[in-house]
Amino acid sequence: MADFLSDTSAPAHAHVLRALESANALGNVRSYGDDALTHEVGVLLERVFGTSSLKFWLVACGTAANALALSSLCSPLEAILCHPQAHIYCDERNAVEFYTGGARLTPLHGCPPEAVSAEVLRRHLALVDRTFVHEAPPRVLSLSMLGENGTCYTKAQLRELCAIASQNGLFVHIDGARIANALAQPENGWSSAAELVDAGVDVLTLGLTKTGAMGCEIIVLFNEACSRFPDLRARAKRAGLMPPKMRYLAAQAVAMLENDLWLDLAAQANRMAADLVAATVTIGPETSSRVGLEVDLAFGRSATGLPAGNEVFLRMPVRLGDFLRNCIPRILFYPWQAGDIALTPQSKPDLGEPLACYRFVCSWSTRADEVQYLCEKVEEWRKLC
Amino acid sequence: MADFLSDTSAPAHAHVLRALESANALGNVRSYGDDALTHEVGVLLERVFGTSSLKFWLVACGTAANALALSSLCSPLEAILCHPQAHIYCDERNAVEFYTGGARLTPLHGCPPEAVSAEVLRRHLALVDRTFVHEAPPRVLSLSMLGENGTCYTKAQLRELCAIASQNGLFVHIDGARIANALAQPENGWSSAAELVDAGVDVLTLGLTKTGAMGCEIIVLFNEACSRFPDLRARAKRAGLMPPKMRYLAAQAVAMLENDLWLDLAAQANRMAADLVAATVTIGPETSSRVGLEVDLAFGRSATGLPAGNEVFLRMPVRLGDFLRNCIPRILFYPWQAGDIALTPQSKPDLGEPLACYRFVCSWSTRADEVQYLCEKVEEWRKLC
Amino acid sequence: MADFLSDTSAPAHAHVLRALESANALGNVRSYGDDALTHEVGVLLERVFGTSSLKFWLVACGTAANALALSSLCSPLEAILCHPQAHIYCDERNAVEFYTGGARLTPLHGCPPEAVSAEVLRRHLALVDRTFVHEAPPRVLSLSMLGENGTCYTKAQLRELCAIASQNGLFVHIDGARIANALAQPENGWSSAAELVDAGVDVLTLGLTKTGAMGCEIIVLFNEACSRFPDLRARAKRAGLMPPKMRYLAAQAVAMLENDLWLDLAAQANRMAADLVAATVTIGPETSSRVGLEVDLAFGRSATGLPAGNEVFLRMPVRLGDFLRNCIPRILFYPWQAGDIALTPQSKPDLGEPLACYRFVCSWSTRADEVQYLCEKVEEWRKLC
Amino acid sequence: MADFLSDTSAPAHAHVLRALESANALGNVRSYGDDALTHEVGVLLERVFGTSSLKFWLVACGTAANALALSSLCSPLEAILCHPQAHIYCDERNAVEFYTGGARLTPLHGCPPEAVSAEVLRRHLALVDRTFVHEAPPRVLSLSMLGENGTCYTKAQLRELCAIASQNGLFVHIDGARIANALAQPENGWSSAAELVDAGVDVLTLGLTKTGAMGCEIIVLFNEACSRFPDLRARAKRAGLMPPKMRYLAAQAVAMLENDLWLDLAAQANRMAADLVAATVTIGPETSSRVGLEVDLAFGRSATGLPAGNEVFLRMPVRLGDFLRNCIPRILFYPWQAGDIALTPQSKPDLGEPLACYRFVCSWSTRADEVQYLCEKVEEWRKLC
Repeated sequence: MADFLSDTSAPAHAHVLRALESANALGNVRSYGDDALTHEVGVLLERVFGTSSLKFWLVACGTAANALALSSLCSPLEAILCHPQAHIYCDERNAVEFYTGGARLTPLHGCPPEAVSAEVLRRHLALVDRTFVHEAPPRVLSLSMLGENGTCYTKAQLRELCAIASQNGLFVHIDGARIANALAQPENGWSSAAELVDAGVDVLTLGLTKTGAMGCEIIVLFNEACSRFPDLRARAKRAGLMPPKMRYLAAQAVAMLENDLWLDLAAQANRMAADLVAATVTIGPETSSRVGLEVDLAFGRSATGLPAGNEVFLRMPVRLGDFLRNCIPRILFYPWQAGDIALTPQSKPDLGEPLACYRFVCSWSTRADEVQYLCEKVEEWRKLC
Repeated sequence: MADFLSDTSAPAHAHVLRALESANALGNVRSYGDDALTHEVGVLLERVFGTSSLKFWLVACGTAANALALSSLCSPLEAILCHPQAHIYCDERNAVEFYTGGARLTPLHGCPPEAVSAEVLRRHLALVDRTFVHEAPPRVLSLSMLGENGTCYTKAQLRELCAIASQNGLFVHIDGARIANALAQPENGWSSAAELVDAGVDVLTLGLTKTGAMGCEIIVLFNEACSRFPDLRARAKRAGLMPPKMRYLAAQAVAMLENDLWLDLAAQANRMAADLVAATVTIGPETSSRVGLEVDLAFGRSATGLPAGNEVFLRMPVRLGDFLRNCIPRILFYPWQAGDIALTPQSKPDLGEPLACYRFVCSWSTRADEVQYLCEKVEEWRKLC
Repeated sequence: MADFLSDTSAPAHAHVLRALESANALGNVRSYGDDALTHEVGVLLERVFGTSSLKFWLVACGTAANALALSSLCSPLEAILCHPQAHIYCDERNAVEFYTGGARLTPLHGCPPEAVSAEVLRRHLALVDRTFVHEAPPRVLSLSMLGENGTCYTKAQLRELCAIASQNGLFVHIDGARIANALAQPENGWSSAAELVDAGVDVLTLGLTKTGAMGCEIIVLFNEACSRFPDLRARAKRAGLMPPKMRYLAAQAVAMLENDLWLDLAAQANRMAADLVAATVTIGPETSSRVGLEVDLAFGRSATGLPAGNEVFLRMPVRLGDFLRNCIPRILFYPWQAGDIALTPQSKPDLGEPLACYRFVCSWSTRADEVQYLCEKVEEWRKLC
Repeated sequence: MADFLSDTSAPAHAHVLRALESANALGNVRSYGDDALTHEVGVLLERVFGTSSLKFWLVACGTAANALALSSLCSPLEAILCHPQAHIYCDERNAVEFYTGGARLTPLHGCPPEAVSAEVLRRHLALVDRTFVHEAPPRVLSLSMLGENGTCYTKAQLRELCAIASQNGLFVHIDGARIANALAQPENGWSSAAELVDAGVDVLTLGLTKTGAMGCEIIVLFNEACSRFPDLRARAKRAGLMPPKMRYLAAQAVAMLENDLWLDLAAQANRMAADLVAATVTIGPETSSRVGLEVDLAFGRSATGLPAGNEVFLRMPVRLGDFLRNCIPRILFYPWQAGDIALTPQSKPDLGEPLACYRFVCSWSTRADEVQYLCEKVEEWRKLC
């Protein structure tokens, strides 16, 4: 079997398990985060982000981490701006409305499928009248890295968005479920996590679960946003996100951050994704004339054509998609829909072949032979055609 | 050091760690609870409760488990009845109000410190007028086992409370943070968890964290309450309580429930508590005349005088409390306040010696030498007097 | 018919109707409170309270006014203290939880039925640990004037409660549904509304509906609480409590406050209540020996034995209650239950006659002949006995 | 002065005032809607809608009426679909999120500025997967009549939208702030309010405030939606939308519905709007060649070119807009922005003249001389050019 369903299907890395055992061997420790391991997370985060002006909270699940982080930044009378395909908007079952007590989540329509555009953001903010009590003023801009459909903001892009946000009194929050993958792909142009803070990010939910932990996300508040920490902590308690044996979340975080394991695992997943693309994508002058053979990188392409992280969105003939889905041993992957964007089977005008988009996700545990098996099957299809 | 602060200070049992490793060795599995281990939890629960008419949800933290369970039973227009010292009322930072969207949490004043009394409940319900739109009608009775101040409902007591609740259209919810300790103490009169269902309990939050897991509570819905499961699941998703790698919660649950490990570990903790009481409590005709020597079991006494579980509430001279607190090596424990009940230092009228109440909690990992050290120190004090 | 059900059964005073007509004659005016009448309310309030350090908001209904006011003072992570029989606790269907987004409403158990006692408040606050994240710290003390069961705080009492609140970082809110009645009864010792501010009240919901308006309550913020006004206004908009044609609320307020109409109408209602008491209450040495004849002022007695406002709570033989209820023409009134306080029919130990408590409310429109008719019927009963 | 700011600037009609006086003359009546006038509203509504299968609730303010109505139809785990320029989405400060406890309000992007299109709705619903717990399934479609930008759904359009909604398990709610204007314009093709029910509407918030009341909106539940009434009533109480002296809301409703006053007043407002358009709109072959003279009906045009109700959206040269705004005596009106739609000053490509859109609203009290004055000023401008 070759499993490309999601990086959440992957197990935890061995170092994480070992860290849990070590944490256990400590015997009795104080509850609710008042312990040495939780303290160590703070030390590591300061190193990772190159600043001691930060506060953090450990959460076992990404949805909770995002919504809790946002609730400490935005009152129920205000609004949060995001991309129309943002995970917090599409896949978290009103979690943000729940945690914030009813803040508005406003999708920035008009953005391209890959990212929030500075132009759309500016146009939206230009229409905001903060003296007009009838509408909820925006307080937060929430972005994703990896972004919608597998893309990554460049430093220049993020800096520009943060600058616009700041000029308009908005906090910038990053949903970093796959932040490690974004940082670990050199083509994206980020050389360290510290650059996120430099760019102007106020709050990050640093995801480690998809990267290789069992279940561990870290809300990190930077600079001025640190003042929200007491409120965040009380909200965490209220939401049942202050587990008594906090050390086991801390142990995971330490294992992942120590020696850059999080970046190494992400780089490994990215390499598998790159290999998958290299062997399957065929769009080019010499192949485009052969009906039914085209495989295209629909989204998430970095500057040189490689995927920006560990997600690969392939547009291909529906017949090929069906062929792969029916292979024995099985190949697992999901069809992909990017919001309003029509990615359902459609006729390619010139060739008459219905196409569709599919998502293949690689994780730290994806094996070369899984990628190879998929590529062989694509090759097999090509010969059949 | 001897640590009696809380059973949440304890590490996880070795079987739990081993179960996590086995779960990890499975490689890729489907996310969000659609996996074999989560399925196995269901099988084990059916055995434990002697019924297949149940549904369950795994949660990493007790506060979230209680509040989520209650939110699936009670609308924001209704009320939940509980003991004035209930954990959900006193120690969960408005979690119930948050999860339910603003339901009322109504303390049943007039109850004794140990438990909800049938008489107070009946008197409260007699005043409810469900046609009166101005007041929030009660929908749930939430009880704790171990109860407030370390006590345990008898079968007869629980059956009576459930009967009253049922006659009045109320669900019965049990906060079972220490349910294993309650069931594992033979003097409490419970011979199996199945008897809880027989008694009429609708929903139980079965706590395993304090018993020996890393962080694992199970919401179990029985019989008619099962119809609330789809709502519960959607609420769990919304609250970020549907972790992608659910298998690691399931693995803990399986390890604890298999071969009755949860009951064995609870029995072990209870034994330590019993030993602690046996060696320290001195109230009796021969000792009561000696000023400063009395140590009394303030709460949580079962029929024969032993503690009902793993919590020991000792009332003793403040001078003795201070002596113990200042021992080297250290003895860790908390002073105890039971709500409105005056347990702060007070003069015992006949003797003039200020007394106070302290809580000593034993866990599965409490060692005999910790208990012995404490007892020796009490003995040492006695000689000093 | 004689109607003592509630002062909310009364119509509006003629001046109020006339004010609505004048407001209507203004033709087009700006919406949402940006009009001359709304401005005039502010001028009148400054005169009434003797300070220009105030902000206000007009609301059509008391429940909304109380809950909205409290929501601008107390976050969902905090608590509001009140009397166990407070209207906001017993009769407003979780409105406070709704408006605050889930703040805790904490009844101060141990208070006498008439009022919040300084001693109980102090004892409660002494147990609060603001560093303990697990419990919701109190932020507001909410009192009622007229209070629970028709009573009125004296200046000394209110000053003491405000001082305790202030020392503990709590705002003081007054539910003033019948504040005019409280102020208009000279025996209560208040000579002006300004004295409420002097005593330390931060926020008042000044009720005018029961006093003689159609539907008009005014939230008034004083001194430091004024800083909450922008938040209050946005919350009002969000709750649909910013009616476009605000002028009609303002017109009512102006009519009531101008020339002290509110106090005159309240004094008139109070007089009827006093007459009712004078003619029916018989407890005294000469009558107490006659079984079945006793009528007692159960609550709300001011220093000299007169009622503190316009509510009369009579304890009398159940047989007399039934007799009055069955008169033709009808006499309308409610039986009364003061929370946990046993006021249901009970045997008077010495006489063996079951007694009960009933509430008779007089309004500005209660006529002398209604009171007289009731009194005659009581007299008739006495002769029958 | 000529005031076209909003129909909420208008006073109440004389019949409404007279009805309040009559209601007042009734003396004491029972509170909270248990009175004859409130009962009469029900009788009138049954006549208006041609069905006795309805339930209703009176509310003083439209924002509260819409949000309360929606909260009784949609759980916090679900979503409400609406037009991106819907009043509930743009101008009610998160009221829907507040009342529903955090339901999602989903704008249907891709709709034309005038209305929700059946095609966009179908496409949106085709992507919904009700088994997918991660996303909030839609439960309500909320439409406006008069719609966004002054338009009106035809019977065929509404029937089609209701059919799609019903097939997908959605309730249809109408924000009827200007429903009378929609029904009273014959060109819109509606001959009675009963046809709304026939078309499949489940819940209507029938607005009477803008039509001529002081402050009165009626939530009407039809057919199956009637089952939500007890919940609606309890929610109304909780929100403080159950005023004790309900009769004064009922009196307004009776005055407006009796003898079709609501439709007569709306027709009167519509006539003024039609006159305004007739005298100002100049777009046609003979005028379009004259730079700076064009006045266009930007939105809300019915089949024959008349406005669909009482709102007139004129697109005209910015210089003309400025000229009108600076007239003495003053002409009052707002510039208009339709969401993302660029209506800010822009160059008309062929003529080089910057244009903008402005809204002129007529009410029942708009006088012919106000309209005439505006028209004369436009004419004056034309001569100046």
